[in-house]
Amino acid sequence: MDITEFFQQSSGKWFSQRTAHHLAFKQTESGQSNIEIAMLEANDPAIAKLCEQYQIDPALALCGARVSWNGTMDWDEEKHSGSTVLVPVADPDKPNEGKLLREVGYAEKVPVAGRYVMGDDGALTLITDYETMYSEERLWFASPNLRLRTSILKRFGGFSMASLCSEIRMGVTAPPQS
Amino acid sequence: MDITEFFQQSSGKWFSQRTAHHLAFKQTESGQSNIEIAMLEANDPAIAKLCEQYQIDPALALCGARVSWNGTMDWDEEKHSGSTVLVPVADPDKPNEGKLLREVGYAEKVPVAGRYVMGDDGALTLITDYETMYSEERLWFASPNLRLRTSILKRFGGFSMASLCSEIRMGVTAPPQS
Repeated sequence: MDITEFFQQSSGKWFSQRTAHHLAFKQTESGQSNIEIAMLEANDPAIAKLCEQYQIDPALALCGARVSWNGTMDWDEEKHSGSTVLVPVADPDKPNEGKLLREVGYAEKVPVAGRYVMGDDGALTLITDYETMYSEERLWFASPNLRLRTSILKRFGGFSMASLCSEIRMGVTAPPQS
Repeated sequence: MDITEFFQQSSGKWFSQRTAHHLAFKQTESGQSNIEIAMLEANDPAIAKLCEQYQIDPALALCGARVSWNGTMDWDEEKHSGSTVLVPVADPDKPNEGKLLREVGYAEKVPVAGRYVMGDDGALTLITDYETMYSEERLWFASPNLRLRTSILKRFGGFSMASLCSEIRMGVTAPPQS
């Protein structure tokens, strides 16, 4: 599976159960989200805009997707919702690795490009070096309708959090008309 | 890393936070355990006994470890404790794959041998086909003192559970004297 196929396979509506283990505090917190992942057409202005922001030629974008989420965590009553655009750009010499451009970082609200590696086992690894933290995520499909995601977060040099998301497909969005 | 090195690296006392996502019920349950993993000497009678039970020549055992645990889950007040012996036996033609003999299965209390695969990325995959369920675990070290473990469980043909264990090293046991 290449990263475009991974995005296509991810396309749709998902119900996500998420649990974070705070390692130093030995505390666990859980939450639930509805996630929607929609592939963008190659000429979608959002792809061009994101590439421009990172000063990358939009012709190098392999594909693009919009991810929207809407969820709750146990520790507060507020709804957490948002959306971002993701665009992978392969390294010129490594077809299975490259930059993942994001409109908004998962953990910090500043634009930051991550590194992705598609493994031979079909798992997608995302590494993001934020200014004050480092995150490593692994996403894979247990089946076409069950996507799993682990992440570990390092702050100030030490691992501070490990988390698991179990994502069950709830529906399928229409593929872009091209 | 080969499987013996993985076992050696796992040796010690660990504090484990565990969360299971029950997929069909959209329920989460968490728990905590103390785990101790101790390498066995090559001539430990427990290794020979386990090999005999599976009708395998004990000379083929790559190493052996005793794993003991003691924990609680949120859904009851009882202590869950137990111990098992693990012995990996490589396939003759595949040095990084083989059988993992276990005294007691993780999920069912009958002896069952799993399959292990040591990946190039240092992750250990364990696959166990029980009579009524199928389990796939992935264990890896984020750092020498943080071990992560995901598992997915299939029952009656469908995935029923995904779980994450975050294991933090709490101490080191003495290596066996040889």
